[in-house]
This record gives sequence, structure tokens and C-alpha cells, in this order.
Amino acid sequence: MKLIRHGRPEQEQPGIILNDRKYDVSTFGEDYNEAFFANNGLARLAEFVQVNESQLPELADDVRLGSPVARPSKIVCVGLNYADHARETGATPPPEPVLFFKSTTALVGPNDAIVIPKNSVKTDWEVELAVVIGQRASYVDEAEAHEYIAGYALHNDVSEREFQLERSGTWDKGKGCDTFAPIGPWLATPDEIPDVNNLRLWLSVNGQMMQDGTTANLIFRIPFLVSYISQFMTLLPGDIISTGTPAGVGLGFNPPVYLKPGDVVELGIEGLGTSRQQLKAYAKN
Amino acid sequence: MKLIRHGRPEQEQPGIILNDRKYDVSTFGEDYNEAFFANNGLARLAEFVQVNESQLPELADDVRLGSPVARPSKIVCVGLNYADHARETGATPPPEPVLFFKSTTALVGPNDAIVIPKNSVKTDWEVELAVVIGQRASYVDEAEAHEYIAGYALHNDVSEREFQLERSGTWDKGKGCDTFAPIGPWLATPDEIPDVNNLRLWLSVNGQMMQDGTTANLIFRIPFLVSYISQFMTLLPGDIISTGTPAGVGLGFNPPVYLKPGDVVELGIEGLGTSRQQLKAYAKN
Repeated sequence: MKLIRHGRPEQEQPGIILNDRKYDVSTFGEDYNEAFFANNGLARLAEFVQVNESQLPELADDVRLGSPVARPSKIVCVGLNYADHARETGATPPPEPVLFFKSTTALVGPNDAIVIPKNSVKTDWEVELAVVIGQRASYVDEAEAHEYIAGYALHNDVSEREFQLERSGTWDKGKGCDTFAPIGPWLATPDEIPDVNNLRLWLSVNGQMMQDGTTANLIFRIPFLVSYISQFMTLLPGDIISTGTPAGVGLGFNPPVYLKPGDVVELGIEGLGTSRQQLKAYAKN
Repeated sequence: MKLIRHGRPEQEQPGIILNDRKYDVSTFGEDYNEAFFANNGLARLAEFVQVNESQLPELADDVRLGSPVARPSKIVCVGLNYADHARETGATPPPEPVLFFKSTTALVGPNDAIVIPKNSVKTDWEVELAVVIGQRASYVDEAEAHEYIAGYALHNDVSEREFQLERSGTWDKGKGCDTFAPIGPWLATPDEIPDVNNLRLWLSVNGQMMQDGTTANLIFRIPFLVSYISQFMTLLPGDIISTGTPAGVGLGFNPPVYLKPGDVVELGIEGLGTSRQQLKAYAKN
């Protein structure tokens, strides 16, 4: 299944994609949140869709999408998880995963604007594969990690490099600004993705290709990451793990290249769709 | 007001403390969560209590307490915010606040057990003053920060030093294990605390005083912290900021002293009550 959430910000309704068309499933009566995943929601949704397929209202193809997962308890990110990206930032690939958090208030839809924070001069991009957790995970064995995965989604781990690296630490400071986590278009359940370790992922800025990698180059693979993170904290249903970015971020250029208002970032992962964000300057509402 | 949440874990009901006695206010019909704080809950609760004071059921004094705030969207912590603590860890006091997150799954009641994580050898204590946010805060001015504060609570920012400092980063890895955030006994609204910048805070292990400081020694004070953090992320109603710990943590001893099963940690802050946690080894449920 491919799950979407559509409609106005903070009022999104559940939907699905069938044969490349978007359908509303708000009559299913549940948002794609912690309770949904915890209570076998994916299986119940599949059954609902099977029974009601012919009556589901089709949505306009350009309907606004939100994050395909409602606000989770946390977004855990993995740093420096592609060797080529570690090199470009001047870091040595770490002996074990670097972890940090994004504030969940950073979540936005896949095609929403990215707001450059007040006083930001180093807003940067990072295409990443995000994993959504399907059930409570604590001290999970790597061999069983797949049972804890609800699906995968495309994520731009937007980062403010000055906030992240030059403002007394930790990285969290440059990762959680509002709009810094565009996720989607859809959440793909694992059956939709034949080999999650062999997906092309790419990102362009104003049409120029900046990142073009493959998940085959992940240093720490997804089952290991789920198991590893679950040694340090309990993952809840709906929680998001973002698995790191390949080479080609703005920080890696000489001199570095950062985003400015008007810039357009487009990104994609094979099987997980594409997203597009235009940059805008912060303005008080 | 002094707000408590009482009852079994994950089924807590709201309560209050009046004249040192605990009362149930579950008939108020709301948990102390994001929606409560966002919708002027404190004022409505005060009115409810005034009208119903004579009919509130009194609770047993030893009723189990949960965190006085339901699971928030995030727990943001400030590192190295007392000069004496920075010195004992070998760090220079930072030019601006160090920020990190605790996973919200770490939240427990003030007198619940602390579970030493599997493979932990360096579980440590940190008495801290926690601030609870009362309304959505983004780019808040320091002079107006007090308007965004719902109240204060006692927090033990339990920390695994090896996970935090020796496992490839960031600090988040050693801060969010289950049970690592005992908060409470109560949330005190600001009117209960005459001078938040002049409160004694202390912590003992097995009856031996380890930390004995005062919030007068905070490097970065609370209004500054609320304003500062809100430059990097939006704070939501119910979010928790933990403001750092004074000297006397286990890591600061030579050689360091860490917690072991059976140890008893007691801590307190003037006006915010005391809490007590017994350590136990991890055991699979």
C-alpha cells in the first residue's frame, strides 16, 4: 500500500494511492498516527480498501499532501551514514551510528515551502530514506527488525549548518527548525519495495543535480539501525528514523553552497516518489 | 496551583495539591497535555477547583504519581548550564547554551524505579529544574518569555555517560533510555515560586548528599533559554525544557561513581517538592 495524508495543514485526512491515482479514505475514520500503527491499522486499512475500493472518492492529482504519517513521538536521525557524505563534510565514518533528533514541529508536507529560519545563512539539503516504525520497539534483534517496520518514505533532512556545527552543540540545534522535515509524498509499505538496499536517491537544486546516490551505499543498514536505536530508547509506532544522506550536500562544496529564497529543491527515491520544496525567507505570520 | 497526575502508569488521572493534600480532579475531564495548556487549561482548572473544592475526592498520600505533564511533543535539555558542573566534566562553560533532546518515552513518575539499561556501566544522576511551556513559542523575545511558561517541576535528567560521550555521538544517545526522565511530584504554576532564580536544588545517593546547588548559579537563565530555544524550533504547549544541573554528578568524581541496582536517589528543589527513585537492573518484561 501507499498511504498519503491530504488536505490543509494540521487538518489532513487519510488517503491512499491505487494505480497512480489518489483516493480519500477519511471514512476509514482514523489518522495515520501512533494508535493506528499500534492497533494493526495497516492490515485493517488494507481490508477496508479491498471492501470499499469501488466507492472511494478520487482526489485531484494536485491535492495538497501532508506528511504521510501524523506527528510522531520522535524523529531519530542517523548522521554520516554514507561514506562519501562523511568524507565531504571532513568527518571520518563513525564506528557506530551517530544519532540525533529533529523536533517533530519540523514536519511538513512533501511539496510545502521550506522556510529559511531568521538569522540563517547556511540552510542546506539532505535527501534521505525514512523508516516508519510499526510497533513498539525496545532491544530488538537485528534479525527481527523487519517486523517493526511499517514502511518507508522520502525525507529531506533540511539542516542549518551554522546552527548545527558552530553554535555550541549539539546537532539538534540545526535540524529542527519549522519546515525542516518535508516527508512524503507517500508511505510505502515494505511489500511495495523489492529491495530497500538498492534504491537510487537523488536531489537537485534549481534543476541542477546535487545528490545522486544509492541506498546500496548505506554504512549501517536499516535492520541494524532499528536494532541499534532500540538499545538506547524505545521506538513507538509511527516514529520516524531517517537513515542519512549520500554525498552532494551544500556543505560539501568548496566553497559551500547554501539555499536562498526562491530556490527550488526537488528530490526522489526509487519507489518512494518525488517531492519539491521552494525556499522562502522567514516572515512573521 | 500545584498539578499532579496520579494512578497507574499510562492511565494517570489529573489531580491537584491543596494545603499539602492531594485531590483527584478527574471530573475536570482533561489530562494535562498539549490541548490542555493550549486551551487556557490552567485558568479553567483554577476556576473548576474554586467551584468544586469542597467536593474533590482526597487521594491517599502515598498514591502513585506520574509525570505531572502528559507526554509532550519534546523534552529539550540544556547542557553545562552551571559553571561548577561544566568544570567537573572537564568542559569550558559554553558561549551559548548546549541543547539536546531526551526521548519522551523516558518520562516516568517522580518515585518510579530507574532502570539501568542493558549493557550500561555509567548510569548517572542530574537534579534539574524543568520548565513547562504554556503556549506555542516561536522567536519569543526574552522580555516576553514569562508569558510562555506554564510552570516548573523537579527533574532527574538521568544520563548514561558511555552512551552519551563515548558512542560516536550525539549526547541524545545517553539521555533518552526508558525511565531516564522522572519528573515531578508536581507542576507548580509560576505564582507558587517567588523567585525561580534563587531555589536550592539537591540530590543524594543512598543518603549521601552529592549535589547541593542553587538556581542562582544558572549561567543562562530561564527567560533567556525560552527565547533562545525558540529561535531554533517551535516549542509547543506542554513541552519541557530542562535547565541543566549543578556540580556533583557521578562523572565528576575521581574516579567516577555510577549507579547500581538497589541504589536510592533522592532529590529536591525548594518549592517543587522531592522525589525518590530506586535503581534496578534491566529485565525483559
